[in-house]
Amino acid sequence: MIQKLADKIKKTNAPICVGLDPMLDYIPEELLKRAYKEYGETLEGAAEAVWQYNKAIVDAVYDLIPSVKPQIAMYEQFGIPGLIAFKKTVDYCHEKDLVVIGDIKRGDIGSTSGAYAAGHLGKVQVGNHTCAAFDEDFCTVNPYLGIDGVKPFLDVCKEEKKGIFVLVKTSNPSSGDFQDRIIDGRPLYEWVGEKVAEWGGTCMEGDYSNVGAVVGATYPKQGEVLRRLMPKCFILVPGYGAQGGKGADLVHFFNEDGLGAVVNSSRGIIAAYKQEKYGKYGSENFAEASRAATLDMITDIESALMAAK
Amino acid sequence: MIQKLADKIKKTNAPICVGLDPMLDYIPEELLKRAYKEYGETLEGAAEAVWQYNKAIVDAVYDLIPSVKPQIAMYEQFGIPGLIAFKKTVDYCHEKDLVVIGDIKRGDIGSTSGAYAAGHLGKVQVGNHTCAAFDEDFCTVNPYLGIDGVKPFLDVCKEEKKGIFVLVKTSNPSSGDFQDRIIDGRPLYEWVGEKVAEWGGTCMEGDYSNVGAVVGATYPKQGEVLRRLMPKCFILVPGYGAQGGKGADLVHFFNEDGLGAVVNSSRGIIAAYKQEKYGKYGSENFAEASRAATLDMITDIESALMAAK
Repeated sequence: MIQKLADKIKKTNAPICVGLDPMLDYIPEELLKRAYKEYGETLEGAAEAVWQYNKAIVDAVYDLIPSVKPQIAMYEQFGIPGLIAFKKTVDYCHEKDLVVIGDIKRGDIGSTSGAYAAGHLGKVQVGNHTCAAFDEDFCTVNPYLGIDGVKPFLDVCKEEKKGIFVLVKTSNPSSGDFQDRIIDGRPLYEWVGEKVAEWGGTCMEGDYSNVGAVVGATYPKQGEVLRRLMPKCFILVPGYGAQGGKGADLVHFFNEDGLGAVVNSSRGIIAAYKQEKYGKYGSENFAEASRAATLDMITDIESALMAAK
Repeated sequence: MIQKLADKIKKTNAPICVGLDPMLDYIPEELLKRAYKEYGETLEGAAEAVWQYNKAIVDAVYDLIPSVKPQIAMYEQFGIPGLIAFKKTVDYCHEKDLVVIGDIKRGDIGSTSGAYAAGHLGKVQVGNHTCAAFDEDFCTVNPYLGIDGVKPFLDVCKEEKKGIFVLVKTSNPSSGDFQDRIIDGRPLYEWVGEKVAEWGGTCMEGDYSNVGAVVGATYPKQGEVLRRLMPKCFILVPGYGAQGGKGADLVHFFNEDGLGAVVNSSRGIIAAYKQEKYGKYGSENFAEASRAATLDMITDIESALMAAK
């Protein structure tokens, strides 16, 4: 799957993914009203609004981008109806031939991680049949439980040619509370990064591995170190835009081949119409504002990479 | 909610929870056949079998125990139908007045953790209405992202008087890969435990806190240290039974008041009928075997606590 992602990045010249993390207060009033009119102010109504909002944005940007990253928490908060909207979003993005990175941050002990891996990337056996449940292309994985919590994901990656991004240095302000603590002279995130590189070596597909890492755009220096530590691993880079990361911060997340990173923007794209810069579109043209913000993001990153050459 | 759990533990004299972590190969053939006949060998068929299996076990043991711990991965692997079975299980256990610990091991950056907290413990705002999605009483939380990933759960705990158990030292063989690494002379899990104690201090309800910790029965020495480090925090102790933990290993997880720990057994109870010891029940009486195993577990822990006095 990393080969497909790399090919699509080269084709679109856009090493990005659009974070489909809808919050109800991003969604234009008119769209909310329509959904509530049909389903009431219920979990079903919220889920319908989320789905219609996503669909419009995907329709407006899919030809510009290689991948999307739906954040499952934003759907899970609306219970079963929300998760149905998540699944519809994954399926719709597949119809548009987008690579889908499920931002699920799962991780558990062996057999339980195996169930997550099967449900999100692989298949489950039911009697004599195999069934796929959520069927994302990549998912994010939390490493706190150690190797035997990650291994079931590696096994499914190998079987299904799918991939994972392991949390290494997350984008949030307090990611350092534990991730930055020094162990034998090096921060924990470097030890995790080293493991990611090792796991990655067992899941190669072309020049890159189906095992990558999550490193926040908000920590560019750490990104530079981790880039060197995991040369064959793609880095999924959240935190661009609304969280404060800029194009110029990102250059060291990339390898010299211009690959090796996929930068995520969520709010900055899906709620672009709320920014002054894209205000002229108005809430009725929110999806066109998202398209404009996507084009601007691609230019910002392209310029930063050119300037660094 | 911790007060309710403590009261129910005193009333049942059973500091345990039953792990509702159904795997299809635990479920008796007859029950599977019935579900597949109605829904086919599909995700729906698997979910129906899981639900019927759970219901029979809950009916057989609910009067003996204070709490259950459904492991969401075992449902999520069957996609939407699986998560519907999870929700039905949570609701049914509430009907039986059991405390429900959702073993979800979620954790993300601030606003995203907020969505998980709202969806699993709290309520979401939809228009002018508030809706509860999964509505567990406690859930488990992964601390790798640091304080701002945990704080939204603390906020919901305070609002809703519900609780969390933060992963500190997990029961799996490779939990030490990162959790045992030494930082300033002490393992990472102690630093996490210290934070849990600090967070716990802000969420007290009676003698105990609504913030607890997960520490595996398979690590009794570490449990003893962590018990002292977090005196007001309940410890959720997985790994009893099938994973190798025994009653005698557990005494140091408890405080002198006989409280402070809730020991989970999953396979050892829900698939008891597959053990030689309970073989006489046969697969047709699997729920009665679960009841017998529950009574034996309660006796084992009670004896160990008596012997330690």
